[in-house]
Amino acid sequence: MKDVLKNRLNLLPAEEYALRLSRLRDLMGKAGMKGMLLTDNANIYYITGRVFAGYVYIPHEGEVINFVRRPVELDGDGVVYIRKPEDITMSLGLNMPESIGLELDLLPYTTFRRLSKVFPGVEIANASPLLRTARSIKTDFEIGMIRRSGIKHDLVYRKIPKLFSPGMSDLELQVEIERVSRLEGCLGQFRISGDSMELHMGNVLAGENADAPSPYDFAMGGAGNDPSLPVGADGTIIAPGTTVMVDMNGNFDGYMTDMTRVFAPETGSLPELALKAHRCSIDIHRELTAMMKPGVKAKDLWEKAEQMVTERDLKAYYMGHRQHAGFIGHGVGIEINELPVIAPRSRDVLSEGNVIALEPKFVIPHVGAIGIENTYAIRAGKVECLTNSPEEIVYFDL
Amino acid sequence: MKDVLKNRLNLLPAEEYALRLSRLRDLMGKAGMKGMLLTDNANIYYITGRVFAGYVYIPHEGEVINFVRRPVELDGDGVVYIRKPEDITMSLGLNMPESIGLELDLLPYTTFRRLSKVFPGVEIANASPLLRTARSIKTDFEIGMIRRSGIKHDLVYRKIPKLFSPGMSDLELQVEIERVSRLEGCLGQFRISGDSMELHMGNVLAGENADAPSPYDFAMGGAGNDPSLPVGADGTIIAPGTTVMVDMNGNFDGYMTDMTRVFAPETGSLPELALKAHRCSIDIHRELTAMMKPGVKAKDLWEKAEQMVTERDLKAYYMGHRQHAGFIGHGVGIEINELPVIAPRSRDVLSEGNVIALEPKFVIPHVGAIGIENTYAIRAGKVECLTNSPEEIVYFDL
Repeated sequence: MKDVLKNRLNLLPAEEYALRLSRLRDLMGKAGMKGMLLTDNANIYYITGRVFAGYVYIPHEGEVINFVRRPVELDGDGVVYIRKPEDITMSLGLNMPESIGLELDLLPYTTFRRLSKVFPGVEIANASPLLRTARSIKTDFEIGMIRRSGIKHDLVYRKIPKLFSPGMSDLELQVEIERVSRLEGCLGQFRISGDSMELHMGNVLAGENADAPSPYDFAMGGAGNDPSLPVGADGTIIAPGTTVMVDMNGNFDGYMTDMTRVFAPETGSLPELALKAHRCSIDIHRELTAMMKPGVKAKDLWEKAEQMVTERDLKAYYMGHRQHAGFIGHGVGIEINELPVIAPRSRDVLSEGNVIALEPKFVIPHVGAIGIENTYAIRAGKVECLTNSPEEIVYFDL
Repeated sequence: MKDVLKNRLNLLPAEEYALRLSRLRDLMGKAGMKGMLLTDNANIYYITGRVFAGYVYIPHEGEVINFVRRPVELDGDGVVYIRKPEDITMSLGLNMPESIGLELDLLPYTTFRRLSKVFPGVEIANASPLLRTARSIKTDFEIGMIRRSGIKHDLVYRKIPKLFSPGMSDLELQVEIERVSRLEGCLGQFRISGDSMELHMGNVLAGENADAPSPYDFAMGGAGNDPSLPVGADGTIIAPGTTVMVDMNGNFDGYMTDMTRVFAPETGSLPELALKAHRCSIDIHRELTAMMKPGVKAKDLWEKAEQMVTERDLKAYYMGHRQHAGFIGHGVGIEINELPVIAPRSRDVLSEGNVIALEPKFVIPHVGAIGIENTYAIRAGKVECLTNSPEEIVYFDL
């Protein structure tokens, strides 16, 4: 990290910080929330531009206080060092808010109990939905960060054909992609809100393994190569007549893109059904991005895709074959599972500033996973694609 | 994963499963806990030998029920598929326990609220301390798993000198270690209980960067190369007169070793102070492993090390220089932060079956981090070292 940044707490440009803060405060006002205390790394990063251990206290009116436990020697406005959360009570003194929003969807129960004592007699509310809403509307600055990740993500994917050699397993190819990706600046960290979903650097799924169900809500999971992490590559040898789906980590600067592409070891080796499904995935992207305008219901996108898949007689393979995923798209930014969710019962409505990964995919038995995923930003009057690798199946030279 | 294992739920040998279950039930009996519902991946892996999405219900007496949400098609004793946690209530019917232990140190508050409604009128207790206690006493089978990770961890570390080339940065070396490690079978997943500590595959710290404070309770953190992940390698060029400390992921089979070694780019380039501190670290390992017997207080180990460091006039550099860590050792197994904790105010007492990573380390200003970390098992009448790479500083050929 640049030396000048090492000790600074707030790394956001002043106007960007003011914009994010005012959006949070607008939502706090509507919810009648007089204060908010954030401790989740992703939320702290969102509001300050850096991760630290501690709490950010945001009153609806008044000065933000950054209660820092670690690292030592951080410098910035409103920095108060604390040893334990109880020190917050003394620091706030008479400035206790009437109500406080905590990240109740994330805070472990015992942490909640401890924090609630920091605010004696104060009404506690759930700040998680408000934060998810705020973070679902990206600023131009945030879209710029995601765009930069997308450019590097693309550079990595374009190198994939050179990384393949005949006889390679899915896992061996994944490791080479991981290396190239890390050397290109990928941070490795794959942020997922909530900690039950575990996945290392993404998924490379070859052939039949794409059809192995995983513990997670993925269309294609993969068996993995160990029961402690039963997801992803399992050592399947990449063979002609099968596909390799690459859905790897696009976090190059704290904001990530999500992109999937399909590779195959020999031109002309894939059956017609697979090619038809890939075409359908690309066509769904075209139709849905044409629909992606502020005010459109997320579930309408899901239904349009469902209709296209049904018309083309591809339903049995859509979003998985043995196990089906419950959604075809999701917001992405600091974390991979943000709002809105493109799912049949989603109540989300699209807004300008949403950044959405669309992933209409298929699993063809004995062939593998097929289809693409792109990350799109909904901007004033247009949809911008942030993941610009070629969408057609890329064949490995043998 | 082997095909035969893909669809089996309980992957532990029958006697191993019975042993773990009886230990949990002994602790439940002592705590007066009539039932326990586990949902954390690490705890589910501990009791079933595989990760799935769902819940394991363990009554103090009676049959264990595995409530599975995903993957589909899992096969095994006591498997009940559910769509949502509320389905558990109907399944248990009249067999509601009088009290239920939940993982209250991990469950998000809103999840806790939802789960508490699954058990109407049932007293809720915190199962987290009980699970931490059970998991701190490893079975022979678990020590075998950790030993196997240690063998691969060692293989990877022995290859490190060949990965170095002059002019390399810490990050470039880390990426090559990551690759070799992954090809050797490292799962990548670095399990940490609680989700606030973020780190990708471990730490490679060169020179002055070892002294950069991080958000976490590490002796040596590193600035990282992005404010969203301000820890670890930061692009420092590896130079003569400085050290490279390697503390990388040792999770090769779901159970991990923790090992740190020091490398330096030129024989004879390190100052006497660094060599003295390294000698002291090794000597602390010798003294402490001689003390590591069942019944010994964890804090006595900490104090012995403190005394040695003080006598040798190395206190200013011990466990960090600008920022100091609060512990010199920790239990390790499925996760990196298990019990016991070797710290000044630890109340832990050593037991047979504990697996402990000891990491007395130093940061020498302008030189870097020095000292070693090993993982030890406390067995009947002996301490077994599970991380057997050479302990002396390894010099890179230039």
